[in-house]
Amino acid sequence: MNEQALNCINSRIAGCSFAIYPMTDQFVDVITTSLKNVDTSKVWIKTTDVETCVRGKITHVFDVTKALFLHAASTGHHVVFSATYSIGCPGDSDGDVYLSTDDHRLNLNTNNLQQEVAGKFSLYPLGGGNYMNIIYNQIEEMKLHGVKVSSIHYATRLDGDGKLIFDGLERVFTNLESSYSSHLVMTTTISANSPSKKGEIL
Amino acid sequence: MNEQALNCINSRIAGCSFAIYPMTDQFVDVITTSLKNVDTSKVWIKTTDVETCVRGKITHVFDVTKALFLHAASTGHHVVFSATYSIGCPGDSDGDVYLSTDDHRLNLNTNNLQQEVAGKFSLYPLGGGNYMNIIYNQIEEMKLHGVKVSSIHYATRLDGDGKLIFDGLERVFTNLESSYSSHLVMTTTISANSPSKKGEIL
Repeated sequence: MNEQALNCINSRIAGCSFAIYPMTDQFVDVITTSLKNVDTSKVWIKTTDVETCVRGKITHVFDVTKALFLHAASTGHHVVFSATYSIGCPGDSDGDVYLSTDDHRLNLNTNNLQQEVAGKFSLYPLGGGNYMNIIYNQIEEMKLHGVKVSSIHYATRLDGDGKLIFDGLERVFTNLESSYSSHLVMTTTISANSPSKKGEIL
Repeated sequence: MNEQALNCINSRIAGCSFAIYPMTDQFVDVITTSLKNVDTSKVWIKTTDVETCVRGKITHVFDVTKALFLHAASTGHHVVFSATYSIGCPGDSDGDVYLSTDDHRLNLNTNNLQQEVAGKFSLYPLGGGNYMNIIYNQIEEMKLHGVKVSSIHYATRLDGDGKLIFDGLERVFTNLESSYSSHLVMTTTISANSPSKKGEIL
């Protein structure tokens, strides 16, 4: 194991840096309302002018990001969630205290929100290995859980219910974290209430 | 060289899948106006309800994406550009014909647009190796060209003039492409005209 790998395993805190983009003059209200409806007390959270970062257990990182997006989308505005989920090297310690929380999710009420979405995700298992096979296996996993999956450049397209898509992303991330112990990155973009038709428009 | 690496070097077409998010009720107008102002004839381009994908030479992929964002931002609305630039494995051939274009950029007039922006970028050199050192070297490169660089979780924050930031991203991507011959991914988010103050707000 090289020095890089050794540094990696000190902290298994997961994190997500993300932003929610409401395409409306009321974009500040949409974000504020969404934040009021979500309990973020089991994650470390920091917001800047560019993004919000949450860190903690995988369970809570997904619970909070899923809830924030679905509440924003429930306003009916065209809203897009863009995120980078990450775990592993290069580790740092902000928020490590949140790893001692229990596993009970605080935003289960989000599962009452019906929201059709369209999106995409990409997996980047860093540090080498047969990474394309790892990615293909996880794309298959998505299909088993009610998400429509299709091929696009540089990513995999996802269509379906917002809850199922977030749950699928969490499952894939958790599977890879437990089977692939180094540095894992997953990016995703999820769009709700777009006025554009599904698929190709130009 | 393994089979995966062999498959990778067949096509060196670069690409970018991206979206521009205008936080205004006039979001469709902002995008349409931006598209009218940009010459995309040297790249393969396809737009769906989730994203736009452009493919071609690195030069033209950056020329077009930089121009689209800066023209959208010049409307004065709060506008965010979110993108994944990629080159290498797994190769596919859509748009390979655009690799035979000359190198003359079609949107040089973009350099007349002054636009302060805040953003971030991350590099994912896939397929192994000492990837963290590769990343750190390219972050240093950014600083040499008038971009303010700072550390954030899961990315590097960039502040400065929009043109300089896009030029810096292109330089980093080109450097890595020529020195690191496998699969390279760079993600970036760039925000203009945000009503939030720079840096931390919560």
